[in-house]
Amino acid sequence: MTGALDPSLAEVIAARLRDVPDFPQPGVLFKDIAPLLADAAAFNACIDALAELPAAYEADLIAGVEARGFVVAAALARAVDAGVVPVRKAGKLPPPTVSASYQLEYGSAEIEVPVGLIEGKKVYLVDDVLATGGTLKATLGLLALAGAEVTGIAVLVELSFLNGRERLTGHDLTALLTI
Amino acid sequence: MTGALDPSLAEVIAARLRDVPDFPQPGVLFKDIAPLLADAAAFNACIDALAELPAAYEADLIAGVEARGFVVAAALARAVDAGVVPVRKAGKLPPPTVSASYQLEYGSAEIEVPVGLIEGKKVYLVDDVLATGGTLKATLGLLALAGAEVTGIAVLVELSFLNGRERLTGHDLTALLTI
Repeated sequence: MTGALDPSLAEVIAARLRDVPDFPQPGVLFKDIAPLLADAAAFNACIDALAELPAAYEADLIAGVEARGFVVAAALARAVDAGVVPVRKAGKLPPPTVSASYQLEYGSAEIEVPVGLIEGKKVYLVDDVLATGGTLKATLGLLALAGAEVTGIAVLVELSFLNGRERLTGHDLTALLTI
Repeated sequence: MTGALDPSLAEVIAARLRDVPDFPQPGVLFKDIAPLLADAAAFNACIDALAELPAAYEADLIAGVEARGFVVAAALARAVDAGVVPVRKAGKLPPPTVSASYQLEYGSAEIEVPVGLIEGKKVYLVDDVLATGGTLKATLGLLALAGAEVTGIAVLVELSFLNGRERLTGHDLTALLTI
């Protein structure tokens, strides 16, 4: 789907990413999207682009991964008139939930999605940054377990050197900026 | 400002809250807003109501408190054409930040806001639920420290028996549902 995107949008995003060396751990170059989120015109342009994707605008629900993914999910949900589903770190959602553990770029994590709200629904999954793809892959499994039909995945920024896309094969994956 | 809100909206919200006893700790009655967020029409109606408030639509930025506050902030930012500022748990935001510790309804916490993006900006602060008001009060202090002008505060649900409103006096505080 990325072929249909305006290439100048990638430049808009790239100009609003801030590189933070050694965060949250030594050796990790953190991509801070705060300047992008704080720029209404730029962030709206990102959401507009995602909202034009059939897999997004046909969805009943937009699922976002805690915590920055919530920002993308809620703005996109507003744009396509969908509901929002939170994908959360373990222990944050009240029962009933389904959960999964997985490996992160640095460390491991356990995530949960709520049960009962998403069964039989078309769900579009979003996050801010695609790194190794571990979180999104685990989320795809959880959404399927909870009975959702995942229509596609979108991220604002894909860190292609981490090969996260390879872990998400078989899914319609859109990245607004690939670096 | 609550006097200008449609009273039927409160009923819409109340019908989509789920009481979860003893979560996250024994003795706490958790108000689960997931059914509200997943209902596009109901959640949009909440955001529409907030977007009509002058303090919201005149803001440059909408600040949301991690993590559910991000959902409200991003949807409202989309509605009023503002940017989004994340208020995060300590250690999640890259430097430079300002931080503050405070007491929660259960336990204590430390939060941070980014420095540099919000100085001189009009910021509207939102969260999902107003409980004791500790988080929002701490956030107000941080936003001021970072040079922002806070135009007002909104929550979807106010738990009035916890008297959080008393800790936020002097601010324009809107709650879409007070219980």
